[in-house]
Amino acid sequence: MLLMAVDLFEGDLKEGIPAALAIETFHNFTLVHDDIMDNAPLRRGRQTVHEKWGTNTAILSGDVMMVEANKHLTNVHVSVLKPALDTFNITAQGVCEGQQLDMEFESRDDVSIEEYIDMIRLKTAVLLGGAMKLGAIVANASAEQADLIYQFGENLGIAFQLQDDILDVYGDPVKFGKQVGGDIISDKKTFLRLKLQKLASSEDLLTLQDQIGNSDNKSKVELITALYDRYEIRDVATDIMKKYLDLAFQALDKISTPDERKEELVFIANQLMNREN
Amino acid sequence: MLLMAVDLFEGDLKEGIPAALAIETFHNFTLVHDDIMDNAPLRRGRQTVHEKWGTNTAILSGDVMMVEANKHLTNVHVSVLKPALDTFNITAQGVCEGQQLDMEFESRDDVSIEEYIDMIRLKTAVLLGGAMKLGAIVANASAEQADLIYQFGENLGIAFQLQDDILDVYGDPVKFGKQVGGDIISDKKTFLRLKLQKLASSEDLLTLQDQIGNSDNKSKVELITALYDRYEIRDVATDIMKKYLDLAFQALDKISTPDERKEELVFIANQLMNREN
Repeated sequence: MLLMAVDLFEGDLKEGIPAALAIETFHNFTLVHDDIMDNAPLRRGRQTVHEKWGTNTAILSGDVMMVEANKHLTNVHVSVLKPALDTFNITAQGVCEGQQLDMEFESRDDVSIEEYIDMIRLKTAVLLGGAMKLGAIVANASAEQADLIYQFGENLGIAFQLQDDILDVYGDPVKFGKQVGGDIISDKKTFLRLKLQKLASSEDLLTLQDQIGNSDNKSKVELITALYDRYEIRDVATDIMKKYLDLAFQALDKISTPDERKEELVFIANQLMNREN
Repeated sequence: MLLMAVDLFEGDLKEGIPAALAIETFHNFTLVHDDIMDNAPLRRGRQTVHEKWGTNTAILSGDVMMVEANKHLTNVHVSVLKPALDTFNITAQGVCEGQQLDMEFESRDDVSIEEYIDMIRLKTAVLLGGAMKLGAIVANASAEQADLIYQFGENLGIAFQLQDDILDVYGDPVKFGKQVGGDIISDKKTFLRLKLQKLASSEDLLTLQDQIGNSDNKSKVELITALYDRYEIRDVATDIMKKYLDLAFQALDKISTPDERKEELVFIANQLMNREN
């Protein structure tokens, strides 16, 4: 996406590679540390670093990957080094804050929809926005144009994450590639769950509450999905998702490059939003 | 030490502050993560971050401190930004590698003296050297001068760490402030221990081996200290320490600023080497 932003602003793709490597390495560093925090045994179908080499080595590997990301970034053209660093550091800080909020939400019962959106914005969307802004910076786009592509990326990222929440419940079990209802089984506070808690009658809230201790995953998923259906949560979530997708496209519209340069980004955004896994 | 290097090269101390903050924040980030890895309950007489807030929060706090360190560094004068970043990143990578080696040594029985020196060089001395080199860069010193102050810092750092190993065994219990023999009790592979293993007769090696399971700390410390005495390990360690201190002063001598500008550095180096805790 960073390189696509470079291309949008008619920059030299080669000039974008150090920044793209920085973002990619940074992203993988956060995955290594997130997997420790989430106690995750698998990543991309393979053993996680902490599972294979131990937690201490995973902490350190992540740390040194972060340094490696910074090393890559120093190879951007010196004329854009300072703004590139500033954008990269703000992005990195946002991602860390998002992960912290995500963890805190696990033990909180009063998470609002607004807080949830802000958390996924920081944890996921800021990285997409920041990556595309870096692409704009490398391509010598103006600050205003760089901000617009940031908005495109950030809003697309929020839409993407909301769609993740929807797919977890309503994805096609064959095409989804993961266990449908995984978020329900782990009582994850997704958008759907928080919205249901807001809309449900006190009786239905009690039913929901009772399911927390249910170890029969199949009946738990069926019962909570039925509650989602009763309050038309899928439609509510889809509407909000489309709202963020609209915001993304509005930002893209305002970018002053010819429409034909935007075609690839429109294509990939639509593809992401119509995915089934 | 970074600011002293700025002063040595007649730089503006204020210009050195962003780099000094970067090094200080980076150093504290490594302590937060090291304390997780070492399972340390206390740091500077207070609960460690992971003890007080949990391991996950400590991992993330460290990560975001690393970002904060990078943010500080971007505030150095733009004319020295690229070399400052390069030195900072090489330093950071060295420190991570040193910590990884330190952990690996715990489960290895074939650690050589050379490997040990290289580990303490990376884990401790590179930071001191890197900090002082950053000071030289901020003060617009030449690459050659910056390299000399790096050598001063690195060799002083190695001498400092070797002295740590000596003080642990031969420190004055009243002045040392920590439990004398702490390294012996925890079977830490210090310079003294590795040297003893190299010099001791097979009979004395067996005595040493037997002490690993000894839960009577007092007798363990006495017995192993007696072995150190038998092979005059203290003198050997002191000689090596002085060798690195000499290398440090040789590098300082070659720096082309007037001797009176070096006085503070000579004073602090001697103070560090004559410390009793």
